[in-house]
Amino acid sequence: MNNINLVKNYIKIEKGVAILGVQYDLEKVLLSDYNQSWSHNGVSGERIAKRLGDLSKIGLTSQHGVSRVGFSPLEQQAKELVMNWMRDAGMSVIQDGAGNVVGRIAGLNKDADSIASGSHVDSVPEGGHFDGPLGVITALEVAESWKDQGITPTKPYEVYIFTDEEGTRFNGGLTGSRAMTGALDMETQVTLKDADGFTFEEVLATTGKKLEGFTQAKRENLGIERFIEVHIEQGKKLEQANLSVGIVKGIAGPSWTEIIYEGKAGHAGNTPMDDRQDALTAACELILYIENAPLLVSTTGVATVGKMQVEPNGANVIPGKVTLITDIRDIEEHSRDQIVSNVVNKAQEIATSRNVEVTITEKMRTAPVPIGDEMTRILNSVFDEMKINKQYLVSGAGHDAMMLGAHIPVAMIFTRSKDGVSHNPAEWTTLTDCTISAHVLKQAIEKCMEQ
Amino acid sequence: MNNINLVKNYIKIEKGVAILGVQYDLEKVLLSDYNQSWSHNGVSGERIAKRLGDLSKIGLTSQHGVSRVGFSPLEQQAKELVMNWMRDAGMSVIQDGAGNVVGRIAGLNKDADSIASGSHVDSVPEGGHFDGPLGVITALEVAESWKDQGITPTKPYEVYIFTDEEGTRFNGGLTGSRAMTGALDMETQVTLKDADGFTFEEVLATTGKKLEGFTQAKRENLGIERFIEVHIEQGKKLEQANLSVGIVKGIAGPSWTEIIYEGKAGHAGNTPMDDRQDALTAACELILYIENAPLLVSTTGVATVGKMQVEPNGANVIPGKVTLITDIRDIEEHSRDQIVSNVVNKAQEIATSRNVEVTITEKMRTAPVPIGDEMTRILNSVFDEMKINKQYLVSGAGHDAMMLGAHIPVAMIFTRSKDGVSHNPAEWTTLTDCTISAHVLKQAIEKCMEQ
Repeated sequence: MNNINLVKNYIKIEKGVAILGVQYDLEKVLLSDYNQSWSHNGVSGERIAKRLGDLSKIGLTSQHGVSRVGFSPLEQQAKELVMNWMRDAGMSVIQDGAGNVVGRIAGLNKDADSIASGSHVDSVPEGGHFDGPLGVITALEVAESWKDQGITPTKPYEVYIFTDEEGTRFNGGLTGSRAMTGALDMETQVTLKDADGFTFEEVLATTGKKLEGFTQAKRENLGIERFIEVHIEQGKKLEQANLSVGIVKGIAGPSWTEIIYEGKAGHAGNTPMDDRQDALTAACELILYIENAPLLVSTTGVATVGKMQVEPNGANVIPGKVTLITDIRDIEEHSRDQIVSNVVNKAQEIATSRNVEVTITEKMRTAPVPIGDEMTRILNSVFDEMKINKQYLVSGAGHDAMMLGAHIPVAMIFTRSKDGVSHNPAEWTTLTDCTISAHVLKQAIEKCMEQ
Repeated sequence: MNNINLVKNYIKIEKGVAILGVQYDLEKVLLSDYNQSWSHNGVSGERIAKRLGDLSKIGLTSQHGVSRVGFSPLEQQAKELVMNWMRDAGMSVIQDGAGNVVGRIAGLNKDADSIASGSHVDSVPEGGHFDGPLGVITALEVAESWKDQGITPTKPYEVYIFTDEEGTRFNGGLTGSRAMTGALDMETQVTLKDADGFTFEEVLATTGKKLEGFTQAKRENLGIERFIEVHIEQGKKLEQANLSVGIVKGIAGPSWTEIIYEGKAGHAGNTPMDDRQDALTAACELILYIENAPLLVSTTGVATVGKMQVEPNGANVIPGKVTLITDIRDIEEHSRDQIVSNVVNKAQEIATSRNVEVTITEKMRTAPVPIGDEMTRILNSVFDEMKINKQYLVSGAGHDAMMLGAHIPVAMIFTRSKDGVSHNPAEWTTLTDCTISAHVLKQAIEKCMEQ
């Protein structure tokens, strides 16, 4: 069945808020292609579909994607929906000062550190329905399955929803998990402004949060023994190998650098070509260098300019200022840093040769996280028991698990994603693959409980 | 004397309206550097300074520039000030439905078509005090000089103030002169909205104007025999040649083309470099081509990308869509069109080689206006008589004279502008150069009267 058949009518999105009127039934589309034999052992594909569908309605766009940006009322609305499900599953629920949600089953040994799982419910603008929600809903499905089976885990089990993983509004990312692990620099954070010029504090106020909450959210001791996150692959390796799930071996650490070129705005008609200080052509020269920069250093590196602002942005005015952000990643820290350093040098070289000013500011530099042998061994044994071929993967994207990985053993399970597309309404994972991921997670969590 | 010495205190500008309190005495600054020997033959540098000074106060900004945007109450206030001066100079004054002001001396042969001059009094936001006002005040100075000398011209003489030359509010420009010459497409005009979402009609209402007025302003027959406009150069050629004034040989016609690249948005971390359809890198390749495109065809052509939008514009999302506008100009239509055509071909070539979609839409294509031999001959003889070296210039910017030039012989006199700066508070022309321009205009107008 084609998605388009399920469309009844369309909506407009205004200022990120869905206007009532779209009818897109994600649950129905998911159920139309599901192998029901995977609903067993307490795990319900039907429940997963219902929940992905319910979440999809919060910020649904006319493209049938979702715009549920971090720190929007929609993100909080999605969290509250999941908090209700957590309570229904018998979990105690808290939301910390950074807005991170924790649903908890105390377990038999309620004083032990928890085994935990989770992800996020915010999206990029016009994003998809699986990046984030799949990790939250499968984590919750583990608790649901135990409830159905009458199982009480030996240790506490926690499901996390981390705030603002995507970092759309303030060019950050992993904001909630950084706050919790003490990796959020509040001195920098308070200086940030969104595209409309609102400060971090002003934006927080719109969802009833305060700066102090982010400081208070920091845990001296995480109280988590191990953490496993399910996430869509955002790549094509599983699809190419015809596998539902894979084992992540390492998470590439992203580095974000803001580069501002300042030339001289001037009249497009009256400034000769040889007398210009055009900030945009300087930026373009850099962007084309960046496109080729990874391959000079590494076969696994990637480099992207996704965000760019031109000023004054008038058709007949030579650009006086261009602000861009480079996103550079690799699984090895030294090669990632080498690419960054090459780009920074090139940015300066271009500024000199084109007689424009350049300002370079590091916005984020996260160390890549290798997955430890013990967590890999646990996932290996689950895959063996479930008779799934073991495909090892690298995560190019940063994930909340990465922030926790600096302190405790973490693992990630990747789920096949159609055409490797993410951050796009076309993002798609079958319900069968979602449900298989829940089974893998459940068994891995149960093994962690036994350690 | 430094401008700053004349500053008494500062103001804020809010929504384009000057808040009382700034004291910047443009007249005094102008007079501090003036060769008084140029006040003769009925032309008064002191009067020019007084009038530039009086106009400067309408929309004066704390940067000592002016914000007197088209269709603002300030533009109308500036027109009314000049209308009073026109009446004092013995002119009859009308304002047409488009707000264009015409001051008229009937002359000896009152039924003949007029010889005319003029410019505009609107500015860009934070613009300067000479772009526009110089052309209006020197045109009026011709009438003043005749009044002082007791001269009645043989034919009617008209001074024009055209509405909204800069086109700031609706991304248009030359609005009044286009309305008068029938080149304003009212069907398009009524669909325009300003940055605050107000329609053209709603904005007109704030200055007591109506849509019908713009239709009624169209003249079947201009009733003008010849038109000469004085304007600051907005370039550095006169400054480099150490000349006060120059002769415009042609007005470059701008061509605006919108180019949209659509690739595939994807995750910056998980999409391998060799599997991307990045709309931004495609756009950058084109922009670097555009930078070099004019020189392949012409030494007078210019090409600019000033406006560009990246979507979805997230730091960790490969750009799926980039919209840009190319502004390409030359004084010869065939070379201008050749540059445009080369850019369009390259845009398509890049789309093919990078596997992205491209959509190309022509937004504007205005024919360049060559200055005819007869008008050039008239200006040549004035320059010879005044013993001024003849420097020929090209106007890269559009001017109201260009709109009239499609129907009648027109000419432009450019006045030296410090550092070639315009559309900026730093825009500066000495009073001596302003006054020399008035003399050149006066003599050229008098020669037109004799034709």
